[in-house]
Amino acid sequence: MALIVQKYGGTSVANPERIEHVAGKVAATRAQGHDVVVVVSAMAGETDRLIGLAKEITPRPSPRELDVLLSTGEQVTIALLSMALEKRGVPARSYTGGQVRILTDNAHNKARILEIDDARVRADLEAGRVVVVAGFQGVDREGNITTLGRGGSDTTAVALAAALGADECQIFTDVDGVYTTDPRVVPEARRLDRITFEEMLELASLGSKVLQIRSVEFAGKYRVPLRVLSTFQEGPGTLITYEEPDMEQPLISGIAFNRDEAKLTVLGVPDRPGIAAGILGPISEANIEVDMIVQNVAEDGTTDFTFTVHRNDFERAREILEQVAPKLGARGVDGDTRIVKVSLVGVGMRSHAGIASRMFAALARENINIQMISTSEIKISVVVDERYLELAVRTLHDAFELSEPPREGD
Amino acid sequence: MALIVQKYGGTSVANPERIEHVAGKVAATRAQGHDVVVVVSAMAGETDRLIGLAKEITPRPSPRELDVLLSTGEQVTIALLSMALEKRGVPARSYTGGQVRILTDNAHNKARILEIDDARVRADLEAGRVVVVAGFQGVDREGNITTLGRGGSDTTAVALAAALGADECQIFTDVDGVYTTDPRVVPEARRLDRITFEEMLELASLGSKVLQIRSVEFAGKYRVPLRVLSTFQEGPGTLITYEEPDMEQPLISGIAFNRDEAKLTVLGVPDRPGIAAGILGPISEANIEVDMIVQNVAEDGTTDFTFTVHRNDFERAREILEQVAPKLGARGVDGDTRIVKVSLVGVGMRSHAGIASRMFAALARENINIQMISTSEIKISVVVDERYLELAVRTLHDAFELSEPPREGD
Repeated sequence: MALIVQKYGGTSVANPERIEHVAGKVAATRAQGHDVVVVVSAMAGETDRLIGLAKEITPRPSPRELDVLLSTGEQVTIALLSMALEKRGVPARSYTGGQVRILTDNAHNKARILEIDDARVRADLEAGRVVVVAGFQGVDREGNITTLGRGGSDTTAVALAAALGADECQIFTDVDGVYTTDPRVVPEARRLDRITFEEMLELASLGSKVLQIRSVEFAGKYRVPLRVLSTFQEGPGTLITYEEPDMEQPLISGIAFNRDEAKLTVLGVPDRPGIAAGILGPISEANIEVDMIVQNVAEDGTTDFTFTVHRNDFERAREILEQVAPKLGARGVDGDTRIVKVSLVGVGMRSHAGIASRMFAALARENINIQMISTSEIKISVVVDERYLELAVRTLHDAFELSEPPREGD
Repeated sequence: MALIVQKYGGTSVANPERIEHVAGKVAATRAQGHDVVVVVSAMAGETDRLIGLAKEITPRPSPRELDVLLSTGEQVTIALLSMALEKRGVPARSYTGGQVRILTDNAHNKARILEIDDARVRADLEAGRVVVVAGFQGVDREGNITTLGRGGSDTTAVALAAALGADECQIFTDVDGVYTTDPRVVPEARRLDRITFEEMLELASLGSKVLQIRSVEFAGKYRVPLRVLSTFQEGPGTLITYEEPDMEQPLISGIAFNRDEAKLTVLGVPDRPGIAAGILGPISEANIEVDMIVQNVAEDGTTDFTFTVHRNDFERAREILEQVAPKLGARGVDGDTRIVKVSLVGVGMRSHAGIASRMFAALARENINIQMISTSEIKISVVVDERYLELAVRTLHDAFELSEPPREGD
């Protein structure tokens, strides 16, 4: 008998019929002899409806009152799911974040969980009840309602699993697991049975939007075994776990890509100390986030300094650079919004040389020009022309045989 | 400077536009130098929408979970109203029943308020804030969410006013006060400037559905001055207060009527002790409520025993009586659903004889036959054929000059 925390998102509880379906899944888990704590989001569309009401009153609602408003969304779901469970003869009890209680700081709309008092939850589990908890919300020390920000229900589930020492935290979504890459680009993309936390972090931040990144960090910190699986389809999903020495570890787990970036280059900057700060300082002061940064020394004592930003920030960043460039003695500013970033991710590459050259050779065979390169311990990213996105991802998926199940010692 | 508790019902906060209107009224009260605590209901239709969701899942939702669900309705309103106040530059803070906290017993769906901790509300008032409290809800000693039942927001307002020692509790509705009778029946009906609690109780229970009766009882118990006034129309409304010796007290304050009753008579019952219990025992065991009861001794040693019930209970009550009558030696059972009850209400009648005869004489002049009579300290009720309802009410309204403002010493 295990203790399982299950989290169901807004699509999974979008209407009473789906809530009944979720109740059936919870009942089935319990029938296998497990204790179950369920965390739910607001019914799909409900949070947007509530925000719409607030916006009718004011474009800038008070953050405290917005939390009072939005937290009702999950409260509706916990009540309905508990009713559906009790109808099936499964004793259940619902709790808001404040009732559990999930203590957070007082940063309304983006609060962080400080502490969970699990006494009531444990007492209910011991009494044989399923405990249904509202995701996304908590209370600060003064008892004010707070929310964790969009997607915060994943974080609630992981934090509860950590506090309770749960055996597994299961995140139910509308996909049946984490894939080697986006199946819409590579139809042969394969569902991964397991993946490490570090890989998941890289894949999530690069655009495979299966899990909220904060919840993955949280799970990593407290070593909570996390499983992603589908509400609508039976299957084992993907287990997100730690790197184990004896684990069958493929070199590469997956290929992520990001179409939302744009590239900016300051041309012919004199190559002397302080140049990078001189360029990026004004960018960061404007609250523009920078992703990849590449600088190469040229032979004439000048350098081209290139970095990427979100496409929405491109125009603003270019204007800033055009003001800054003359002061730095640069020759000019260049930019391109029609680029994509493609990344190979895998903890296996730590111990294997040659991944990068194999990657670059595969791209070269297809005549795909690499505009930028950046590497980390478990990731190699390249920037290419956006026309080559699908070709690049398929080529790399093939080159690293990602549609084949991993082999012993590969 | 006074402390005012204002309560706005569902129609008054039915949409963001009306919530803005309410915010304007609250801001105006505050601009007059008063401290304001506002109690609000769920937006009109919201409670029914939530009940609809529950019913899609189960016809008999768990009372505990129904309270978790329904309490979100008022929580949405407090957040939106606080936003609207802050937009106007009025500092405001919202609280759920549990946050205040409003402690209740654990009778879910019909909880009673035990105690109010007014510390947070007082602190906010001292800090110059308007406090916005969710009506209709509280928490029990274990922190479970409870609701007070439909109309409970009035009770919340009165209980808060009592706990805070407020100078006045203002109940805003869609009527501009309490009238001498229903203006749809008597166009000359006059708004009363003031009325006693006892009169209000009689008028409310007799069908002038302005205020929830429990909240009036509560206000009477704690001597909270209560004012009924309109959200949509300026005016002083009606102040519900205590009988004061020097108050300009008219004999009669108003005329109530009730079209929902039906009359049942057990004919020719032998006149001996225990007969009333023999008839009404089986009726009350069937959970049928009885209103008026009349019994007259006849000369032949038998009596006719007559009482009224709600029309919905008429058929059931008649069946019971038809089984009971032979055992009691009665001659038979008669019934009539086409009756109405018309009541004169006024604390002034306590000290004045002759009200009853003046009433009966007025009805006799119009040839209206009186079928039943029942009296209390401040009320005389008669049952007449439902065809005469309008005629009877207009006749009495005229006879007691209710469209004239009260005169000194009348």
